[in-house]
Amino acid sequence: MTSKSYVVQMNANGLHGHGVVNGKAAGGAPRGRQGNDVHQVSVNTGPHHAAKARSRRQRWDVRPSEMAVKTRNPIRAIVDGMKLTPNPEKAMIALSIGDPTVFGNLPTDDSVHQALKQAVESQRYNGYAPSIGYQKSREAVANFYNSPLAPLEAKDVVLTSGCSQAIELCINVLSNPGDNILIPCPGFSLYKTIAVAVGVNVKLYNLLPKQSWEVDLEHLESLIDEKTSCLVLTNPSNPCGSVYSKEHLQGILKLASKHCLPILADEIYGDMVFPGCTFHSLATLSSDVPILSCGGLAKRWLVPGWRMGWILIHDRNNVFGSEIRQGLVKLTQVILGACTLVQGALESILLNTPQHFYHSTTSFLKANSEICFKELSTVPGLTPVMPSGAMYIMVGIDIDHFPGFENDVDFTERMVMEQSVFCLPTTVFDYPNYFRIVVTVPEEMMLEACARIRQFCQHHYRPHSQDSSELDQ
Amino acid sequence: MTSKSYVVQMNANGLHGHGVVNGKAAGGAPRGRQGNDVHQVSVNTGPHHAAKARSRRQRWDVRPSEMAVKTRNPIRAIVDGMKLTPNPEKAMIALSIGDPTVFGNLPTDDSVHQALKQAVESQRYNGYAPSIGYQKSREAVANFYNSPLAPLEAKDVVLTSGCSQAIELCINVLSNPGDNILIPCPGFSLYKTIAVAVGVNVKLYNLLPKQSWEVDLEHLESLIDEKTSCLVLTNPSNPCGSVYSKEHLQGILKLASKHCLPILADEIYGDMVFPGCTFHSLATLSSDVPILSCGGLAKRWLVPGWRMGWILIHDRNNVFGSEIRQGLVKLTQVILGACTLVQGALESILLNTPQHFYHSTTSFLKANSEICFKELSTVPGLTPVMPSGAMYIMVGIDIDHFPGFENDVDFTERMVMEQSVFCLPTTVFDYPNYFRIVVTVPEEMMLEACARIRQFCQHHYRPHSQDSSELDQ
Ligand SMILES: Cc1ncc(COP(=O)(O)O)c(C=O)c1O
Ligand SMILES: Cc1ncc(COP(=O)(O)O)c(C=O)c1O
Repeated sequence: MTSKSYVVQMNANGLHGHGVVNGKAAGGAPRGRQGNDVHQVSVNTGPHHAAKARSRRQRWDVRPSEMAVKTRNPIRAIVDGMKLTPNPEKAMIALSIGDPTVFGNLPTDDSVHQALKQAVESQRYNGYAPSIGYQKSREAVANFYNSPLAPLEAKDVVLTSGCSQAIELCINVLSNPGDNILIPCPGFSLYKTIAVAVGVNVKLYNLLPKQSWEVDLEHLESLIDEKTSCLVLTNPSNPCGSVYSKEHLQGILKLASKHCLPILADEIYGDMVFPGCTFHSLATLSSDVPILSCGGLAKRWLVPGWRMGWILIHDRNNVFGSEIRQGLVKLTQVILGACTLVQGALESILLNTPQHFYHSTTSFLKANSEICFKELSTVPGLTPVMPSGAMYIMVGIDIDHFPGFENDVDFTERMVMEQSVFCLPTTVFDYPNYFRIVVTVPEEMMLEACARIRQFCQHHYRPHSQDSSELDQ
Repeated sequence: MTSKSYVVQMNANGLHGHGVVNGKAAGGAPRGRQGNDVHQVSVNTGPHHAAKARSRRQRWDVRPSEMAVKTRNPIRAIVDGMKLTPNPEKAMIALSIGDPTVFGNLPTDDSVHQALKQAVESQRYNGYAPSIGYQKSREAVANFYNSPLAPLEAKDVVLTSGCSQAIELCINVLSNPGDNILIPCPGFSLYKTIAVAVGVNVKLYNLLPKQSWEVDLEHLESLIDEKTSCLVLTNPSNPCGSVYSKEHLQGILKLASKHCLPILADEIYGDMVFPGCTFHSLATLSSDVPILSCGGLAKRWLVPGWRMGWILIHDRNNVFGSEIRQGLVKLTQVILGACTLVQGALESILLNTPQHFYHSTTSFLKANSEICFKELSTVPGLTPVMPSGAMYIMVGIDIDHFPGFENDVDFTERMVMEQSVFCLPTTVFDYPNYFRIVVTVPEEMMLEACARIRQFCQHHYRPHSQDSSELDQ
C-alpha cells in the first residue's frame, strides 16, 4: 500500500479539511481533532481516489437551485408585476381566470358530488393506490375513451395529479436536456414552464388567427430538427377556443408521421365543444403516430381543484414500446398520483354524469361566447375571434389605434384602472396584442364587461392620425 | 445582403434538410418541394446565424429520457425482481407494505371522514386553490404545529401532494446537479430516487443499530463538503422506528450549524411515538439552523392515499430569505398541489381529531412492536431492534448462521416460499442483512407471522460449524 502525505491547510479560523482514506470517508478523523491545531493529514491517494481537501462552509449561504429559479410561470411573472388597481367606483370583473367554478354559475353535476361522497363513506379509498392509479379507475377511463378507431385498455391509462402532472410526465419521459419540443403560439404556458425548468428547449409554432387559429404547417415543419422530441398540440385550445377539423388534424399527423415525431395531445378540453361542432380526438385519426393524450376532470366536469388527470397511451404500432410505458410508470413513483378518493369516485363519475350536464355546459359557453363576440365585434380597435370550444375567446387589439398604449399588458392594466375589468394579456402566452376573455362568467356579467370594454376603447381609440399615416408613406 | 449558396445533400431516400434563412426558419421551403428532387438550397448565412442542415428522422426511434431511466424506486426494482411465490398451504401474510390501512384494523377517525364529506357537500372546494394551498388551510397547519420554540404562521406553510412532493420540492429547491445531499443509511428510499433523477448525488451516513439507530455523527461530519446542499434527517425513522432524544438531535444540529448546512427534516411520523416516548420536532431545538420540515396526513391520520402533505419553513435567522420561499412557490406552480377537497377538510381534521385517536394508534403500535420484539428476540440468528415510534421494526439476520442464504433478499424470498410471510429485505434501503416488519397488522396475524418466522429460522439456522470456526482461527 503506497501512501502519500499531503498538507491540508488550516484556514484563518483554524478549520481543517477532512482527509479521505482510500476513497472511503475517514469518519474517525475529525472528532479527536476538533479544536486542535492539526496541520498535516496523512492520506492514501490511490490512483483512482484523488484525495481532495474539502472546504467547510463558514457562513450561511443557501440559494435556490437553478431549477427553482428557471421554473417560471409567465402568467404569474407578468400578472404579478401589473398594477391591478380597480376603479373604486366600479365592481371588479375578472375575466382572466381559467377556473370555471369561480362565479358559482357552473356547478358540477350532482352525480359527481354523490360519487365523491360515496367514495368517502365506503372507507375503501384511504390507503395508497398503485402509483399509476387503481386498476379499476384506469379501466373506467379506458372504457370511457375507448373507440374502434383508437382502442384503449386499462394498461394504456396512467392516472395523474391533474392534467398538469400528465403533461409534466409526458414531456419528461420524451425529452432530455438539450432536446426541443414544439409548442403552439399562442399556447398554454405550462409546456414552456416545464420544459425550461429541466433544460429542454421550446420552439414556438405559429397559429393563424385568420384561419381560426389553425397551425401554420409550413412554419411547424420548418422548426423540426433531429433534437425535436415531441410536438405538443392543444385541441381544443387554451387560449384560442379553437377546435380543429378532421382535415387539419390529418395534416398535422402527416407531418408528424413524415418526421417520425411523437405527439403530446393536450385534450383537457376534449369534447368540450359548442353544439354543432365536432371534436376529433387525435388518436382516432392516426394508426402510426404514437400519441400521448393528456386529459382530466378539471374542465369538462368542472372540478379543477380535485387534481384528477390522466395520460392515454395510443401506440398501435408499438413505437413507444415498453420502454416509454415503463418510463412513465417510474416517473409516477416519485410523488404518486391523484387523491385516492377522487380515483375511487372516477368510475361512477364517468358512468353517471348525464349527457344533459355536458350539453348544458357547452350550450352556455357557446351562448356567452356569441354575446361576447357580437358585442366586441363592433368595438373600434378590437377584433374578437369566435371560438368553437373550450372556454375562452381571443380578442385582438389594434394597438396602433390606441396611441396611449404600448402593448396588451399596458392596455389590460389600464382597463382595470378605469373600468375594473381584467382580461388576461396574451403576452403571457408569448403572443402580444391580444387579450383572452374567459367565457364562464354569468351572462349579465359578460354583458356588463363588454359594455365597459366598449367604453374603454371608445375613449382611447384614435383613427390613424395624419402624422403617422404621413410617416408611413 | 451577402448570400452564400451551399448544397444540402439528398440522402438515399430522397429526403432533404431544411434551410435556415437569416437564422429564422425558412418555413416556406419544404412545402413546394415535397417529393421533388431538390438538390440545392440557397440560404443566407449571416455572421451570427450559421445555417445548419437539419437532418430529419427517417424512422421511429422514441426512447425514454435519461431522467425517466434514472428514476428508480429501489423497493420496486428489488421487490419486483423477487420470486414471491407463497407456500400454497399457508395464507400469505405481507408484513412489507408501509400502508397502515391495508388490514382494515386501523381506520382513520370518524371525524376525518366527516370533515371530508362536509368539504364535498359545501361545494366550495371544487375550483383551483393557490398553488401553495388555501390560505385558511395553511393557517390551520401553522396553528397546529406552532410552538413558542418554533413559531409558525401561514406564510411558513406550503401544502403539497403528499409528503413525497414536499420532499421533492425541498430537495429540488436546495440542490443543483452535482451537489450532494446527506441521507440516512438505512433510510427511506425516496430521497435517493428524487436526487438521482435530477443529477444530485447522495452520500449515505450511517445509523448505529446498537445505539437505537442514532446517527454516527463522526461519519456524518466526514461526508460534508462544499457541494453538500442539505442534510436529510428522518425522525421518527422509516425503516428503523427510532425516535431521537433531544440530546442527540442537538448534536446533529450542532454539526449542521458548524457546517452551515440546512436540514430537510422528514417528520411524516412526527408525534407518532409510543406512549412514554417524546417526539421533539427538530425546529424547536434550534434557532439558527434553517429547517424545512416535511409532513402530512398520511401516517398519523392513517389516510396515505389522500395525498395531503406540507412543508413547514423554519427560518428564524432568515437564512433562506425570500429566495428559497419564492423558489418553493415557483416549484409548486408546475403541477399545483393537493386535492382541494382534502385541503378544505384540513382545518376541521386538525381541530377535531380527538386525542384518544392518536393515542389508541400509538398504543396499538407499541403493543404490536413489543409482541414482535419479544417473539423474535428468542429466535436463533435474528436480532430485532425495539422501536420507539413510527410503524416499523428492524430485524437483523445473522447471515453467517444461515449457510443456505446469500443475503436478506434471498432470505426473505425463501421465507415467502416456505412460510408465506413477506418481510421487506433492507437491501432496498441500501442496508443489507436486515428485514423490516410493518407493525400495523392485527395482533393475531403478528403472532402467527412471528411463529412462522421462528419455524423458518429454526429450520435453517446453523451454529457456527467446526470448519468455519477453524478457518477463523
Ligand atoms: C390547455 C390546458 N392544459 C392543461 C391544463 C391543466 O389542467 P389541470 O388543472 O387538470 O392540471 C389547463 C388548465 O388550464 C389547460 O388550459
Ligand atoms: C419517511 C417517509 N417519508 C415520506 C413518506 C411519504 O409520505 P406520503 O405518502 O405523504 O407521500 C413516507 C411514506 O412511507 C415515509 O416513510
